[in-house]
Amino acid sequence: MVLNATQPKDYIDIAEAVSKELVQTAVARDIQAGVPEEEINKLRESGLLSLVVPKQYGGIGATWIDALKVVRKLSKADGSIGQLYGNHLNLTALGHVSGTLEQKEKYYRETAKNNLFWANAINTRDTRLKITPDGENYRLNGVKSFATGVALADLRVFSAVQDGVEIPFFFVIPKDREGLVSNQDWDNFGQRRTDSVSFTFNNVLVYKDEILGPPSPPDNAFATFLGIIAQLTKVNVYLGITKGAFAAAREYTQTNTKPWITSGVETATQDPYILHHYGEFWVELQAAFSLADKAAQQVQVAWEKDVALTPEERGEVAIAVSAAKALATRVGIDITNRIFEVTGTRATATKYGFDRYWRDLRTFTLHDPVDYKLRDIGNWVLNKELPPVTQYS
Amino acid sequence: MVLNATQPKDYIDIAEAVSKELVQTAVARDIQAGVPEEEINKLRESGLLSLVVPKQYGGIGATWIDALKVVRKLSKADGSIGQLYGNHLNLTALGHVSGTLEQKEKYYRETAKNNLFWANAINTRDTRLKITPDGENYRLNGVKSFATGVALADLRVFSAVQDGVEIPFFFVIPKDREGLVSNQDWDNFGQRRTDSVSFTFNNVLVYKDEILGPPSPPDNAFATFLGIIAQLTKVNVYLGITKGAFAAAREYTQTNTKPWITSGVETATQDPYILHHYGEFWVELQAAFSLADKAAQQVQVAWEKDVALTPEERGEVAIAVSAAKALATRVGIDITNRIFEVTGTRATATKYGFDRYWRDLRTFTLHDPVDYKLRDIGNWVLNKELPPVTQYS
Amino acid sequence: MVLNATQPKDYIDIAEAVSKELVQTAVARDIQAGVPEEEINKLRESGLLSLVVPKQYGGIGATWIDALKVVRKLSKADGSIGQLYGNHLNLTALGHVSGTLEQKEKYYRETAKNNLFWANAINTRDTRLKITPDGENYRLNGVKSFATGVALADLRVFSAVQDGVEIPFFFVIPKDREGLVSNQDWDNFGQRRTDSVSFTFNNVLVYKDEILGPPSPPDNAFATFLGIIAQLTKVNVYLGITKGAFAAAREYTQTNTKPWITSGVETATQDPYILHHYGEFWVELQAAFSLADKAAQQVQVAWEKDVALTPEERGEVAIAVSAAKALATRVGIDITNRIFEVTGTRATATKYGFDRYWRDLRTFTLHDPVDYKLRDIGNWVLNKELPPVTQYS
Amino acid sequence: MVLNATQPKDYIDIAEAVSKELVQTAVARDIQAGVPEEEINKLRESGLLSLVVPKQYGGIGATWIDALKVVRKLSKADGSIGQLYGNHLNLTALGHVSGTLEQKEKYYRETAKNNLFWANAINTRDTRLKITPDGENYRLNGVKSFATGVALADLRVFSAVQDGVEIPFFFVIPKDREGLVSNQDWDNFGQRRTDSVSFTFNNVLVYKDEILGPPSPPDNAFATFLGIIAQLTKVNVYLGITKGAFAAAREYTQTNTKPWITSGVETATQDPYILHHYGEFWVELQAAFSLADKAAQQVQVAWEKDVALTPEERGEVAIAVSAAKALATRVGIDITNRIFEVTGTRATATKYGFDRYWRDLRTFTLHDPVDYKLRDIGNWVLNKELPPVTQYS
Repeated sequence: MVLNATQPKDYIDIAEAVSKELVQTAVARDIQAGVPEEEINKLRESGLLSLVVPKQYGGIGATWIDALKVVRKLSKADGSIGQLYGNHLNLTALGHVSGTLEQKEKYYRETAKNNLFWANAINTRDTRLKITPDGENYRLNGVKSFATGVALADLRVFSAVQDGVEIPFFFVIPKDREGLVSNQDWDNFGQRRTDSVSFTFNNVLVYKDEILGPPSPPDNAFATFLGIIAQLTKVNVYLGITKGAFAAAREYTQTNTKPWITSGVETATQDPYILHHYGEFWVELQAAFSLADKAAQQVQVAWEKDVALTPEERGEVAIAVSAAKALATRVGIDITNRIFEVTGTRATATKYGFDRYWRDLRTFTLHDPVDYKLRDIGNWVLNKELPPVTQYS
Repeated sequence: MVLNATQPKDYIDIAEAVSKELVQTAVARDIQAGVPEEEINKLRESGLLSLVVPKQYGGIGATWIDALKVVRKLSKADGSIGQLYGNHLNLTALGHVSGTLEQKEKYYRETAKNNLFWANAINTRDTRLKITPDGENYRLNGVKSFATGVALADLRVFSAVQDGVEIPFFFVIPKDREGLVSNQDWDNFGQRRTDSVSFTFNNVLVYKDEILGPPSPPDNAFATFLGIIAQLTKVNVYLGITKGAFAAAREYTQTNTKPWITSGVETATQDPYILHHYGEFWVELQAAFSLADKAAQQVQVAWEKDVALTPEERGEVAIAVSAAKALATRVGIDITNRIFEVTGTRATATKYGFDRYWRDLRTFTLHDPVDYKLRDIGNWVLNKELPPVTQYS
Repeated sequence: MVLNATQPKDYIDIAEAVSKELVQTAVARDIQAGVPEEEINKLRESGLLSLVVPKQYGGIGATWIDALKVVRKLSKADGSIGQLYGNHLNLTALGHVSGTLEQKEKYYRETAKNNLFWANAINTRDTRLKITPDGENYRLNGVKSFATGVALADLRVFSAVQDGVEIPFFFVIPKDREGLVSNQDWDNFGQRRTDSVSFTFNNVLVYKDEILGPPSPPDNAFATFLGIIAQLTKVNVYLGITKGAFAAAREYTQTNTKPWITSGVETATQDPYILHHYGEFWVELQAAFSLADKAAQQVQVAWEKDVALTPEERGEVAIAVSAAKALATRVGIDITNRIFEVTGTRATATKYGFDRYWRDLRTFTLHDPVDYKLRDIGNWVLNKELPPVTQYS
Repeated sequence: MVLNATQPKDYIDIAEAVSKELVQTAVARDIQAGVPEEEINKLRESGLLSLVVPKQYGGIGATWIDALKVVRKLSKADGSIGQLYGNHLNLTALGHVSGTLEQKEKYYRETAKNNLFWANAINTRDTRLKITPDGENYRLNGVKSFATGVALADLRVFSAVQDGVEIPFFFVIPKDREGLVSNQDWDNFGQRRTDSVSFTFNNVLVYKDEILGPPSPPDNAFATFLGIIAQLTKVNVYLGITKGAFAAAREYTQTNTKPWITSGVETATQDPYILHHYGEFWVELQAAFSLADKAAQQVQVAWEKDVALTPEERGEVAIAVSAAKALATRVGIDITNRIFEVTGTRATATKYGFDRYWRDLRTFTLHDPVDYKLRDIGNWVLNKELPPVTQYS
């Protein structure tokens, strides 16, 4: 199903088709965990890898607005694939945002031409990976955690710290670079097919031109904008998972749930409390979708400003994305919990896998704390201070 | 300030100016309650009475999208004026929706030409007002409650029931019609300047052509669509009140609130919990605005279909509006309660009138129960049944 | 109705009788606000002023467990009288807790013998009242806010600061002491009959033996324990108000509320959502009562330890009281809001005064922020640190 | 560790010891699922099987108040064992409540004497198990689901329906009775070690004296009281699971969680939001414990009335238990979700098994819907109607 996807309708349709295929095996793959080879192969075959690569470099040239719809669609089937694909999309634009002009062009072109899959373990909070100069190039030693999908990626992005240098290095190395070993230690209760293992680096070579940047002009607000897009990408994974939970529950209630013995109604679909719960789910979902979609429009406007993006503009988009994130988290956790109250005890059978929605969402929404997103929003509301520029905001 | 308002920017600016004037006296008028003469005079002078009257009939011709923004803007200053003006806007379109083609034209033209103010006591749940034939015309006797703003209205809309006839009559009578007496019995804790009194009718004449309808074609879905617009109008009043509460609290926290003795911060604006509350307020507000704005777009699309609107389309817009209403109610009640937790005890002084936001919203959100909106949404989600066609849905 | 109340049943019955009288006029007095002369006269006549004065000093000798039930009972009728009486009870024990042994005996005896009413403006956050030595006595100048009921009190407690002295002075002066003027400036939206005005002090004399303390032994944990009792007293005022709201709503739903038009039931008391709301109210109320009652038992145990109370024991009771307070606040705010969803629009008529429950509770729950109570509890849970000793914890 | 447990302190200590042993292997057993042989053996060895058997029949003679504390203690380690043991305790009293006087004595004595373990598949909603007369005895054919722990039980309780007879039969059969086959089909995401399989019955013999009852007097309110005790037993399982989650999270936060990068604090235990969450957890837990403990006292009072229990008294205890259940469910779901917000992403590793608290609680709280508990409470609050007598209320 590698299509010439050039119109939004095309790639939304492709995503829909991939999603429908993946949902068939989602429960089994969740139990199995392990390396998501099958899923990433499907992504490669789908033609969706170059979705945000601009047309001038051979890509599909979708906006972030449309690209995030694709992320949401895939996540509805399976949170893991949503995260893998979302990360990939973000990383295909990393050269554009944080690289030199040469890197921007090189990575865009290669991605489109060779249908490359990207993954990363940037995770600047883990500082165990050290980089040291080696002639004009560099060497890596140490460990890095949360290397989501890196085992299968054609291009791999990491961050590492050099002794005595405050700012970490970001760099891109190819799959065949020697000295990386997966510790095969991802065994968490959610997002189980993301293979978010740690990697050990044994004197791994990094060529100097694999080090990202400096962006031009340096210190422009756009150079750190990918973190904001990455946040909104996560939001869309959350919403996809939540929509998946909602849809699965609805079908189950319609077909399996029995009315309660004192309810006085003949079918569960007439139960006044079940109807009320679904009413609340719908309201919450619409609100969360609506806020996420609005943030996507703001992200796209900012994206098109490119290096002309001001720190104020960047900060205001960050606030909008944080708001969408806080809401999507709250709504998602609520719905993935309450679906059981409208389906019943038998819906807890492992064969349905309805707990995977909660496990995936609960795990992935911990990526960075919502409490601090709310504080940042409050600080902007009350004090007009922009959120601090970090990997997460 | 009667302007030639022909562009959205114009009438939004006018609304902003009226809002700023009204907020100055809002606390005093809330305490005083009584007949909103000053406010309705301001509306008359503003030029905003013909906002949704199409240009071809001499009106401004605003979309519902823009008109509801004006409602929200006025409600930010004062929930009562928001309700009065919102009702007025809805009623100016009543001839269009539920009347004959002659009535549509007549009421649109007269409203624009004579700068007329509309009010009503339709309230079909109160069946004490009886209509009886009197030759080719009719007579009214009895009582009707919740006659919001009717005392000051140029055109007055009521419903009444005829013995042995199931469907109530709707009709429009002018201000100078004899036999109506206000019972001056509106004394409620919220929306105090709406003068939502009951009226007693002593053999009041209704000419046959003052009876609304029949619409053409009869029983078309559009003929009952004004109820949906009226619901969304209320939503925008709720949101305006909530935004007013938020803005007032923010200014107070910035200027008056003292940091708590064990907080370890120098100003209340640095308090981690106060920041978190404001962050939550913001997220909730954005979500509620976003859902209301989306529903307004759906309303406008439906509006433009006019009598081609299908029952399915009408029902789906009703669901979207109900969702916006459920969310606006929840968000509004939450924020008008919690503003005190970010302002402190002294903010309860009567001079600030910060309780009026809660009193207005709590009162007006009881108009019809949100629980049944959620049930209707659930019934549509689970069973694909459209909401029942009532005055409220 | 001055009875010889010597058994719990007796004074609970008296409180019930006073409560039933007060509720008759509660709506009118709330509107009127002003000085609560009628209410305090009723308290004087009731014989309840010496409720916690030990029998050996001529008092009734009730435990705090029973005394707080009386506070709750009175507050059900009227939050203002609950606050006035609760403060009074606490203050009658002030000499015991923070005074010398002579002061303990003197104030207990005089209260019982002369049926004295106590009030205060301790409020250490307001540091505008200055005390200066004047020979062996002292003089007061300045202003003090939140002097709840002081205008009518026989014994009046204040705190004041002396230049260069870190710890404020607490003292008790009689009603006839010259130089105090009420600024008659209490006009807030809740607790309107507490007359919580500010007072201006013009060179007011304080005799040296009117200065409280030092307690013996100094710095014992019991010497600051009255602040904890005062917190639990507030909790019981909150719960009384909430119970009043619940009872008023229930009666209204049973007798006035109409079923919704699409509910399919004949009476509002059969509506599935109304039943569900009342079910939730009940659960919340029982939980809040239960936690408050348990804290009262802990308070009484601590009280009976007297000066043997350790800081750890004091701190753990403070945690239990804070938990009761956080829950009572949340439950009270929820119920005083939602009673309208089970009664309907007409229940907002001023004549019912159902908003006074929210206004009273919203105002009084701001006394000190719940967020910091939760932080203190969390700090104890996680770090085993006792709450800081303040007027509030 | 078979002790002569004759004092509350003794068996609470035993339960504590069993709990500490079980928690060591809880994560592994949860993953493995399967038949809880090891756990039930531990229960047999503990001497706790005869906990509620009265002393006169050779048992320990604990009150329900103390017995439920033991249930809660075991559930803290492992929700499955809590459910198995709670069911067992309830069933040991089944002869007393619903049997003849002979059955009461027989089952009490045998349980104590032979250290018997009970289990059941009463589950009257599943009507596939049929009973037919066979001479003076009976035969069983069909299927019964949710046979929690039956595979390992010495005495097994089922219900079955006879064609043409409205009321189902309840009966007790021993382990060695031929013709029962476990379908080994319990594979659900929570309470995985309860082995709640379905059983197929092939012409299984039931002797006439194995049929429970009739109680004496027939139709007394006490005869259906075990259902209420069973509900409160579940509540204590919920609370034990929740307490386990809370304790596990607290230890993790204290030892593993890192402070957030923009928090400005050095340890996670100083984070203002983490402290606030723990404060809320504590308040919720105390409230839920408090309500459950109060209900246990009411259950015990009712229990001691035995057949003198009136329907009104039974109903009021049912309401108290339902309130405790509604609160425990809400609190438990909240805490088992939010522990991750105070521990962080790494706490989702499978090795910690922290999701088992949510999985166990989410599964077991679906036993019967809380919405109908709340409706029943509301119906009692508003209409003074007692809850319908069912297996669940």
